[in-house]
Amino acid sequence: MKTINPKDVSIAQFHSYLLGAVAPRPIAFASTVDKEGNVNLSPFSFFNVFGTNPPVLVFSPSRRVRDNTTKHSLDNVLEVPEVVINMVSFCMVEQMSLASTEYEKGVNEFVKSGFSEASSILVKPPRVKEAPVAFECKVLQVLPIGEGGGSANLVICEVLLAHISEQILDEKDQINPFKLDAVARMGGDWYCRAHGEALFEIAKPIRNKGIGVDNIPPYIRNSTVLTGNNLGRLGNCEQIPEAVEVEAYSGNHVIQEMKIRFKNDRESFDFHLHEYAKQVLESGDVITAWKILLQEKE
Amino acid sequence: MKTINPKDVSIAQFHSYLLGAVAPRPIAFASTVDKEGNVNLSPFSFFNVFGTNPPVLVFSPSRRVRDNTTKHSLDNVLEVPEVVINMVSFCMVEQMSLASTEYEKGVNEFVKSGFSEASSILVKPPRVKEAPVAFECKVLQVLPIGEGGGSANLVICEVLLAHISEQILDEKDQINPFKLDAVARMGGDWYCRAHGEALFEIAKPIRNKGIGVDNIPPYIRNSTVLTGNNLGRLGNCEQIPEAVEVEAYSGNHVIQEMKIRFKNDRESFDFHLHEYAKQVLESGDVITAWKILLQEKE
Repeated sequence: MKTINPKDVSIAQFHSYLLGAVAPRPIAFASTVDKEGNVNLSPFSFFNVFGTNPPVLVFSPSRRVRDNTTKHSLDNVLEVPEVVINMVSFCMVEQMSLASTEYEKGVNEFVKSGFSEASSILVKPPRVKEAPVAFECKVLQVLPIGEGGGSANLVICEVLLAHISEQILDEKDQINPFKLDAVARMGGDWYCRAHGEALFEIAKPIRNKGIGVDNIPPYIRNSTVLTGNNLGRLGNCEQIPEAVEVEAYSGNHVIQEMKIRFKNDRESFDFHLHEYAKQVLESGDVITAWKILLQEKE
Repeated sequence: MKTINPKDVSIAQFHSYLLGAVAPRPIAFASTVDKEGNVNLSPFSFFNVFGTNPPVLVFSPSRRVRDNTTKHSLDNVLEVPEVVINMVSFCMVEQMSLASTEYEKGVNEFVKSGFSEASSILVKPPRVKEAPVAFECKVLQVLPIGEGGGSANLVICEVLLAHISEQILDEKDQINPFKLDAVARMGGDWYCRAHGEALFEIAKPIRNKGIGVDNIPPYIRNSTVLTGNNLGRLGNCEQIPEAVEVEAYSGNHVIQEMKIRFKNDRESFDFHLHEYAKQVLESGDVITAWKILLQEKE
């Protein structure tokens, strides 16, 4: 590992490590107004949801690293403590990037980026009509952390109203991630599109308490075939099959064939047994994978 | 659009909308200790970087929606205000998910999830040896927002030291997103893997000020062929090619052929011209795309 003390490198260099490492970051496409009512629209990837009661979103228009100036969005929420946070789908990303251009104060980035203003219901800033989701928010607090270039300004927002496009909802009224087709920021000029094969599921271990990787027998845990992800899934099982169940599975024809084929070659038998278990495990059948792995003890 | 006032639906329901919409969320795999030195390791997706001077990470171990209890990680940082925030690669995700199991207080999730403790240099909690990046942090402030089930607790952390695996750095000493192979949380049980074709680049419009979508001639802007992303890229151009340059390009053989083929069919000519421009634009050649689109005026 390379160990870096932020005090030993430039702010720009450490900034680049932070943005490369903490990724992908969701994007707040924030619409604000100044006290004259001039509209600003700008994307921020120092952003996330932090609580749901009250529903809290936080974004940071940080002070610029290069010259310690502040962004119009920050000036605006200090004048009018309201914001609409719009979410960004892949089909919006190049226009959104264009809206991050540092146009002069008073220039409306809705116009420059070609998005449409839709009136909000409870706050002054308009929402982005094309966005799949928009949150009308009041700003509870602006919390600066530091005062130099690159320092954070936590804009802590309470969601007053959510607008969600019906087109991204599934039949259970939940947001479908494939339909949302969200984009997020990575380091440098990189983005991540959350869609297709990039999406996968892991059931939350809420109701069960897995035995843990520590309770997997060492000869399985130290397998050269099984990965950390395989062990994590095996350890998430609440109970290892009992001896009688393992015995009942020994008649499985794949295992019988392996026993004949590798009769005098224990190492090859173990290797193929683990490969077989891995395949079954990755197809989602954890219990059967366990039964296969436990055949090895014979 | 479906409009939802959070006060009109259950906290669990709004929670689910927030988590579905604000995505993908980076994961803080947080290692903490209590005052007796018992270690806890747990993942949080209410997390991001917020500033770089000082370098600030914020995560929220929010109060549980179902019973308003707090998490061990929160109890720990209130006792010992230090944390190591580890980043999670795809190869760690199932073990990380296992570490989110609600084991009893005092149970060390490093052991249960099969990760190795590596001693930190400046703080008491150990880091995850297998993690591609680990940030040793001191907790500056814990800011609760609300007090009911689901309410946020912003744990505001200053990074004291970063550990970065050399294996994820490129030749310019920057983090390579493909090598990082990060995972992030979506709504429900969904995750996003930031790798392969999910990653793409858009140059930041820092040095230039694009003409804006508003300055794209209406007959191009209202094209049925060009997408919002196409218009965003065209609008990010600093200057439209001049008439003499457009004229010089009219000899292009593809355009000449189109002129002959669609001599008496203006609509088809426009369609094919825009298709051609779109292809050139998406290959990255914005100026040539402009020259093609401007042929239409003839």
